[in-house]
Amino acid sequence: MADLLGFEGVIASTITPSKGYEGRIPSYMEFLRQHGVRGYYVLGTWGEGPRHGVEHRKRVAEKFVANLNSGEVAIIHVGSSDMETVTELLRHANDIGATAAAAVAPFYYRPDEETLFRFYSALSERSSIPVMLYNIPSRQGYPLSFRTISKVMGELENVKGIKDSSGDAALVLEIVSEFKGRKFIAIGSDELIHYSFLMGADATVSGIAGVFPELVVGVYRAVRKGKLDEGLRLQRLVNRASSLLEGMGVEFETQRAALRIRGIDLGPPPEPVRQLREEELEALRSGILRLTEELRNVSV
Amino acid sequence: MADLLGFEGVIASTITPSKGYEGRIPSYMEFLRQHGVRGYYVLGTWGEGPRHGVEHRKRVAEKFVANLNSGEVAIIHVGSSDMETVTELLRHANDIGATAAAAVAPFYYRPDEETLFRFYSALSERSSIPVMLYNIPSRQGYPLSFRTISKVMGELENVKGIKDSSGDAALVLEIVSEFKGRKFIAIGSDELIHYSFLMGADATVSGIAGVFPELVVGVYRAVRKGKLDEGLRLQRLVNRASSLLEGMGVEFETQRAALRIRGIDLGPPPEPVRQLREEELEALRSGILRLTEELRNVSV
Amino acid sequence: MADLLGFEGVIASTITPSKGYEGRIPSYMEFLRQHGVRGYYVLGTWGEGPRHGVEHRKRVAEKFVANLNSGEVAIIHVGSSDMETVTELLRHANDIGATAAAAVAPFYYRPDEETLFRFYSALSERSSIPVMLYNIPSRQGYPLSFRTISKVMGELENVKGIKDSSGDAALVLEIVSEFKGRKFIAIGSDELIHYSFLMGADATVSGIAGVFPELVVGVYRAVRKGKLDEGLRLQRLVNRASSLLEGMGVEFETQRAALRIRGIDLGPPPEPVRQLREEELEALRSGILRLTEELRNVSV
Amino acid sequence: MADLLGFEGVIASTITPSKGYEGRIPSYMEFLRQHGVRGYYVLGTWGEGPRHGVEHRKRVAEKFVANLNSGEVAIIHVGSSDMETVTELLRHANDIGATAAAAVAPFYYRPDEETLFRFYSALSERSSIPVMLYNIPSRQGYPLSFRTISKVMGELENVKGIKDSSGDAALVLEIVSEFKGRKFIAIGSDELIHYSFLMGADATVSGIAGVFPELVVGVYRAVRKGKLDEGLRLQRLVNRASSLLEGMGVEFETQRAALRIRGIDLGPPPEPVRQLREEELEALRSGILRLTEELRNVSV
Repeated sequence: MADLLGFEGVIASTITPSKGYEGRIPSYMEFLRQHGVRGYYVLGTWGEGPRHGVEHRKRVAEKFVANLNSGEVAIIHVGSSDMETVTELLRHANDIGATAAAAVAPFYYRPDEETLFRFYSALSERSSIPVMLYNIPSRQGYPLSFRTISKVMGELENVKGIKDSSGDAALVLEIVSEFKGRKFIAIGSDELIHYSFLMGADATVSGIAGVFPELVVGVYRAVRKGKLDEGLRLQRLVNRASSLLEGMGVEFETQRAALRIRGIDLGPPPEPVRQLREEELEALRSGILRLTEELRNVSV
Repeated sequence: MADLLGFEGVIASTITPSKGYEGRIPSYMEFLRQHGVRGYYVLGTWGEGPRHGVEHRKRVAEKFVANLNSGEVAIIHVGSSDMETVTELLRHANDIGATAAAAVAPFYYRPDEETLFRFYSALSERSSIPVMLYNIPSRQGYPLSFRTISKVMGELENVKGIKDSSGDAALVLEIVSEFKGRKFIAIGSDELIHYSFLMGADATVSGIAGVFPELVVGVYRAVRKGKLDEGLRLQRLVNRASSLLEGMGVEFETQRAALRIRGIDLGPPPEPVRQLREEELEALRSGILRLTEELRNVSV
Repeated sequence: MADLLGFEGVIASTITPSKGYEGRIPSYMEFLRQHGVRGYYVLGTWGEGPRHGVEHRKRVAEKFVANLNSGEVAIIHVGSSDMETVTELLRHANDIGATAAAAVAPFYYRPDEETLFRFYSALSERSSIPVMLYNIPSRQGYPLSFRTISKVMGELENVKGIKDSSGDAALVLEIVSEFKGRKFIAIGSDELIHYSFLMGADATVSGIAGVFPELVVGVYRAVRKGKLDEGLRLQRLVNRASSLLEGMGVEFETQRAALRIRGIDLGPPPEPVRQLREEELEALRSGILRLTEELRNVSV
Repeated sequence: MADLLGFEGVIASTITPSKGYEGRIPSYMEFLRQHGVRGYYVLGTWGEGPRHGVEHRKRVAEKFVANLNSGEVAIIHVGSSDMETVTELLRHANDIGATAAAAVAPFYYRPDEETLFRFYSALSERSSIPVMLYNIPSRQGYPLSFRTISKVMGELENVKGIKDSSGDAALVLEIVSEFKGRKFIAIGSDELIHYSFLMGADATVSGIAGVFPELVVGVYRAVRKGKLDEGLRLQRLVNRASSLLEGMGVEFETQRAALRIRGIDLGPPPEPVRQLREEELEALRSGILRLTEELRNVSV
């Protein structure tokens, strides 16, 4: 297993199989791995962590950690609206030897800066493995200022990194400029993958990488080789994949259906999420076909 | 215990004591009761349900139900971001013989209409006690249309009522016009208490009633006696109480601190919420004093 | 012509005829009058003031003022994004002897409180006729606090009233409580007509009254006669009329088309607004038919 | 004067002098020019076009056009909420021989796609000089989809370019990928200057360039020389300049005050905008000083 601070590259924000289908995780990981993914963000927003019960979250986390290859990382998302669940999942992530644990800023309620600091401070103290701040304003319901992020990352030694999904390029640049080399910086905005690597981010934690890993790994490799235009062409395909998955169906069963079309069956949707309708599946199939064809015209 | 559908009047959206302070619930209920409150909405948004762990939620629910007087109702909020927790808390609310169980529309994720219907349908099937839809767009992250509400309430027999906190007077009127007499209609927008009763709502589920019960009960009684202007004067004090509590401190420790000032000590804030600072407490004390003095000038 | 401060009742936020069709205004006014409208808010948001050039705004204002009956009021909206246009239109409203002039809080840019005060202060000084504050957060792009409204209305003698379209019942109650009898209070939120009159507002300035005057006048009369339930039934029809007009077509050509269906032809849309399509017109016709039929079941 | 389609580099979104101070424009242009600015976006959002009357807008436009150097461009923003003003300003921009005219998508009202197309189509037909689409969702009040932008740019030959201030990196990439070489693509989001040039934008139209031209020109030159990291360091200063100017005072008098501190006095604020207070000016002065000092540490 790789150390968090030494890691660089593409982490997939993985899709989660329903109860009884955890056995599919190793082949899903193999699918991602073969396309160049080197890390797994488990039970995040795309992975529907907050939608699943504690026991299933534990089983899924175990399966990902148990199947890590050398050099790979598994970051377990332990966020919840209640502190007890966060604490229990954090302890479990420690017990199973996850690479790190991330927690979204408290949602449903709106904490002030001091309450936020106390939240990450408590996590810090209860963990031997690295803790990561996870900032996703569209879900937590409020933005985090750079001042708050800087206080949490600067003053809490065991907060070893951040996953920022703000979509705010200025915030990303400020974080990289301030914390590069000292903290692990992963960007979670799929439309900013190309630019994040250019700005110096260590990693992307990408939802699209959980479904179309070749696109995101392509962007990463292109940037690393200095082929910026090739990277832009692939970033554009990433953007189209986002439009395809977010423009239809229902969160995040559309993603599961797309994986099924690609040969990875993670089981039915968790209750109460509905399945996709036949015409939606049809549109999804054509969309994926078009993406795959366009991908052929880009070489990295 | 009163039947939900026969109930009329003021239900307090109660503030929740921290772990170890559940013993304070009976005297808190007595405080509310003496001011005319006849029902308890337990562990809702103001009651910080989503912030507490399952065990504490159960203990708190039990205490409220065990201390109900004849003619009173206790509605237990069982909402959570994950279905397993909702189901477990729903079962518990059934086991302890709560009057009803309410669940906020799924939060963190955005369900479509069919997924929402499946959510309340599953709850309906798993409950012998009445189930209530809880609509609070500012927390769940999306609005519910009348069409969706109407489908859920119209087609699911065991969804016996709604707590609507949309703040949308047109939506309230539509719900009352369509479902009055058939379903229990409780309005949860503190600025619309006076008007809700005029429109024909059965009850208010009021956060302000959990801290300043005399104000909300005053509005209700004034409307029932046809003293509309007296009711408006009290509604204005309710609005000022809202501004006072929401304009300072941190959610919902400010409410707990206000209760402490009024003689009801529900213990310290749950982790990770901070306590109020001395200057905040000072401002809160003067604010409460001003409200109390103005209240003297209104007679109902 | 009536005095603004003595006025009570329904003011229609009138729809504006295109250039060359100003001659239709007298028969439009007659249509509104026969349904009980007693005042005209000219070139407001529904009247597309900000969409029309200065000369056409002047011609339209003149026509409304020239055709006022005894006891009626004409409030000319002079708002614009630039101060020169506001000043020119204000002078013109004075010259033609309008009852009052209203100006929306500056839009496109976001003024602070002092800049807002300077805005209404300048208007105040340049007008012999009463000036009205017009608060419509959804168009101006920011809310006005009660503090700001109170400062403007309290300190500027010639600001004689307000049209508040915030949709915020608590704000309306605060304005009425503070300024009733001293300033003219008109509420511009169609979903709050019934409640506004109950709270003590002097008038409604209603867009729906410009297309379906009988509905809004019905609400007003019902409240005045103390027939609150009759008023609620009509308020519900007002809400449905809003859904009909706002749910289709394009702003505010849908309103013009509805008037045409009702026998009042105000001409084609102003450039660049498109016309409604045949299927939209068909849906509009059925919607209006349904509304008219439901109206027959309500007697005031 | 340069041709629009051949232009590449930094266009300042210029600050506008008040009436009577138009004579300061040449020295302001000289200030910008000496720092490497090669184009002027006149009376845009930062230039307060919608806040000024038609006559002042004409005088200001004339002054900028008359003082152009060879190889420079002047784009006159002719946007307004009313079509007559837009048409009059467009004709004037043609008469004075401006390089191009831009118009923000209609504000105050929300046009549908067909109405938007008709808007730019009308402008196209009435202009011999190139017309530019100006997309700024935060001001116009609604987003433009790529589909709409693509239809307007693809089907209207005389719409020769776009200024996009959406701040949406995916939209920028899509526009560049589709229209590069055929249309003039200028990005107006100050936090995306560095990345826009990397994506292939022809120009930035930058508000910060109107006050701190050296920062924005620095970013441009760094990218052109392939010194991406140098560019990022300067982009970070651009972001800090934005925070400084947008975090205090009042729109856009803060910008005018900053220019005055830098030696360019464009006169007092237009009515009704207030002046900055002494303590605000003090904070502005220190902020500018800090920026200037940091700039010294970056070499391009």
